[in-house]
Amino acid sequence: MPDTPADQDSEPTPAHGISRRGLLGLAGAGVVGAGVGAAVDRFALPHDSLATSGASASYPFYGEHQAGITTAAQDRLHFASYDVADISRADLIGLLKDWTAAAARMTQGREVGPDGAVGGALDAPPDDTGEALDLPASGLTITFGFGPTLFRTADGRDRFGLAAKRPEALIDLPHFAGDALQDEFVGGDLCIQACSDDPQVAVHAIRNLSRIAFGRASIRWSQLGFGRTSSTSRSQVTPRNLFGFKDGTANVKSEDATVVDEHVWVPSGDSAPWMTGGSYLVARKIRMTIETWDRASLREQERIFGRDKGEGAPLSGGSEFTEPNFSAQKHGEPAIDPHSHVRLAHPTNNGGAVILRRGYNFVEGNDDLGRLNAGLFFLAFQRDPRTQFVRIQDALSRNDAMNEYTRHIGSAIFAVPPGVERGSYVGATLFT
Amino acid sequence: MPDTPADQDSEPTPAHGISRRGLLGLAGAGVVGAGVGAAVDRFALPHDSLATSGASASYPFYGEHQAGITTAAQDRLHFASYDVADISRADLIGLLKDWTAAAARMTQGREVGPDGAVGGALDAPPDDTGEALDLPASGLTITFGFGPTLFRTADGRDRFGLAAKRPEALIDLPHFAGDALQDEFVGGDLCIQACSDDPQVAVHAIRNLSRIAFGRASIRWSQLGFGRTSSTSRSQVTPRNLFGFKDGTANVKSEDATVVDEHVWVPSGDSAPWMTGGSYLVARKIRMTIETWDRASLREQERIFGRDKGEGAPLSGGSEFTEPNFSAQKHGEPAIDPHSHVRLAHPTNNGGAVILRRGYNFVEGNDDLGRLNAGLFFLAFQRDPRTQFVRIQDALSRNDAMNEYTRHIGSAIFAVPPGVERGSYVGATLFT
Repeated sequence: MPDTPADQDSEPTPAHGISRRGLLGLAGAGVVGAGVGAAVDRFALPHDSLATSGASASYPFYGEHQAGITTAAQDRLHFASYDVADISRADLIGLLKDWTAAAARMTQGREVGPDGAVGGALDAPPDDTGEALDLPASGLTITFGFGPTLFRTADGRDRFGLAAKRPEALIDLPHFAGDALQDEFVGGDLCIQACSDDPQVAVHAIRNLSRIAFGRASIRWSQLGFGRTSSTSRSQVTPRNLFGFKDGTANVKSEDATVVDEHVWVPSGDSAPWMTGGSYLVARKIRMTIETWDRASLREQERIFGRDKGEGAPLSGGSEFTEPNFSAQKHGEPAIDPHSHVRLAHPTNNGGAVILRRGYNFVEGNDDLGRLNAGLFFLAFQRDPRTQFVRIQDALSRNDAMNEYTRHIGSAIFAVPPGVERGSYVGATLFT
Repeated sequence: MPDTPADQDSEPTPAHGISRRGLLGLAGAGVVGAGVGAAVDRFALPHDSLATSGASASYPFYGEHQAGITTAAQDRLHFASYDVADISRADLIGLLKDWTAAAARMTQGREVGPDGAVGGALDAPPDDTGEALDLPASGLTITFGFGPTLFRTADGRDRFGLAAKRPEALIDLPHFAGDALQDEFVGGDLCIQACSDDPQVAVHAIRNLSRIAFGRASIRWSQLGFGRTSSTSRSQVTPRNLFGFKDGTANVKSEDATVVDEHVWVPSGDSAPWMTGGSYLVARKIRMTIETWDRASLREQERIFGRDKGEGAPLSGGSEFTEPNFSAQKHGEPAIDPHSHVRLAHPTNNGGAVILRRGYNFVEGNDDLGRLNAGLFFLAFQRDPRTQFVRIQDALSRNDAMNEYTRHIGSAIFAVPPGVERGSYVGATLFT
C-alpha cells in the first residue's frame, strides 16, 4: 500500500493519485504560513519553538529525534497502544517499515498511500480512508514506541529475538500507592502518539495506521484528548487542566536545549546503544473526580496545588514563573503546604528529577450517577524513568494532597526509539 | 450563584470578580475580530452566516430563536441529556432561570457566576470551575430542549403540570427498522447542546451547567463530538464524515431564510403556541463500522452514497452542488442507485421533507477487537419531526444501502423552545 521509502517525501506524481495539498490547491506558492516547519532544517534551529500553530503548520518527519516530543504541544491527541499478533520478526519489521512510510506522508499533509482515497482502482478499497482529504497537515506528528512486552519471551520463546536488547530503563512500572489500574488501559507492545491541531487529522492518522497493521497488530487501548495541559514551549501560554489550574508552568521547555539534552534524550554511551537519541514515554490515565473537586473551597484547592488559581503563582508569593520558596512562612505555617503538588513534584524534592510532560485533558461521557468521566491523560518523556517518573510518582502517590481527587486507572511505558533517517524505518537500530 | 437577569449582558464590576475577557486583557479595544457577532443585531442581518469562526467569535444569547441552530456549525460539541429529579414545578422553573443566567454569561466569554473562579470567598467553592478562564467565547452557543418525559405523568401524577402543554409534534419516536438502541443513550427530560470552536469551552459549559443543576437534574447521557459533518452556512466548506465522504452538501443553509422559515422554525398559529419560534431536535447516535467500510471498494462506497468520493458530485454527473438526476442512466442502469443514500434522503423521495442537520463525528476508544468506536452523532432541527425526520428515516431505515455499515444505538427527541427575551428565561412560554 504505502510506496517505497525513497519516495516518501516527494509529492506523488499525478499518475499516483492526488495529494491532500494538491486537492487543496496548496501545492503552489502563496500559502501564508504553510510549510514553515518543513522549510526549516530541524537541526539548524530550534524549530519546535517556531510553534506555527496554524492549521497549515507541518513538521519534518525525518531527523535525529522523533517529532512529537519537544514539538510545541498541539491541541489534540489520538493515542493508541497495540498488541502485536503472533507474527515473525520479519513481519514486525515490515509493519514498522509500512508505518514509517505512511507517517512520513501523513505528517506532510499527504494521503497515506500513493493512490489515496480516490486515485486508485474503482474495484479496490481506497488506499486512504478519506476523511482528511480536504485538510492540511495541521501540525500532525506521529511518534512510535516499543513496550516491555515486545522484548519478552512468550511460551518459552523470545517473541522477536529482542530479549537481549531490552533496555534496563524500560522497566515494568512498579505499583504505586493508590493505583487503581484497569486492565483495559494498561500496557501494550507498541504505541503511536498522533498529535495535531485538528482532531480529525489525528483520528485519520491512527485509523489509517491501524488499518495498515491489520493482521499484524491491533489496538489494545486508545485515548483521545484535547489540549490545555502542559505547554512545552515558551511560545505557548500555560494552559489549564480540568481542575481549573494552570498546568505546566515549570515543565521542560523545548527552548532549553541543555535541560532537554540532559533529561529527555538518551545519550550516546547508554547501555542500550540502539536508544541513543531516543526517549522513554510513560502514559498514565488519571481520572479526576471533578464534581468532588468543584465542591472544595478555593482555599483548599490552592493549598493542594501550592499555587493560586488565577495567576498560577506559588503561594510563597510572586507571579506564575517565580520559583516557589518552600521555607516561606505565613501566619506561622509554611506558605506552601508540604503535601502540596508543587512541592512534592518539584526537582528539589526528587533529586533534581524533571520530566517533559505532554498530557491532554479528556472527557468521555458520564457514569451512572451523571458524573463526567473526565481527567488527565498524562504523557511524559524522559531519559530514564527509574530516576525520573518513578521517583516523582513515588513521592506524589504517597503524599500528594491531590490524590483525594484523582485515580490512576491506566498505565504504560514505552521505549521511544530515535528519529528516522531518510531511507530507513522507525526502530531500525533495534533490529540491526 | 448566577447574578440577576438584568445584569447578564454587562461586564461584571470589579467588585464582582474578573471576567474572562478581563483576565485576557481583551476588555479594551484592539482585538481584531472580537465581538463581531455580538455587535450585530440578530434580526437586522443574517449574523449566523458571518461565521467569524475565529476563537474570539461570540454569538448573542438573547433573540427570537435560540442560537446553535442556524448558527454556522462550530467545530466541537458537548451534548448532554438530563433526568430531572423529583422536584416541584417551581424548582424546575428555578433551574431554567439559573441555566439561562449562566448561559447568557458563558456565551459572551464570561465566567458562569459573578465571582468566577477566583473572585469569591476563599472558604467557599468557586462560582466557576476555571478551566476556561483564559479562553475567549470561542463561538460558544448553548441550546436547551425539553424531552417528552417532562410532560408525562409519573406515578399517576402530572410531574410538572405540563401534560396538557405537550406539543403533538413532540412524539415518542417510532421504532425504525434495524434500530439497535442502547438504553444508556436514549431519551431525557432536558437537553443542552453546547457548541464551540474550542472543546475546552464546550466542556466547561456542560460541566458548569450540570453543576448548577445539582440536586435538580443530573446527566443521563452525554456526547462529545468534533466537527466535519454538515455545514450549515454557505460560508463553510462542506466537511467530511468518517466514511470519508462530504456530508451536508444539500443541507439547509442558514442563508436560505425561506427554507429555514418553512422547515426549521415552528410558525405562529401552531397547535402548541408556546413553541412559536422554536424547533424540534432529533438526536441519533449512529455507530459506523469503519473497519468494514474501509474494506469496501471505492465503487461500492460511491454507489452507496450516490456521489463520488473526491468531489461529492452526484453520480449522474456535474459537480458537488449539481442537483442529482435520478432518471439518468449509465450502461443501461440508473446512474444513481435507487437504494443510495442521496436518493432515499432526497426531498423528492420524501414529500419535500428537508431537515437542518448539525451532526458531529465521534471516536470513543475501541472495542475488544481493537476496532474504533466511531460514528456520527446525528443532530437535526425541524418544524415537525412527524413529516420530516420520521419520514426520511423511515425510508432510509428500510432501504438505505448504507445500513450495512451503520447501527443506530442512541435516540432522543426534544422540543427546543423559542429564543429568550432579555429579562426572561428559556422555556418561559411553556410555564405561563
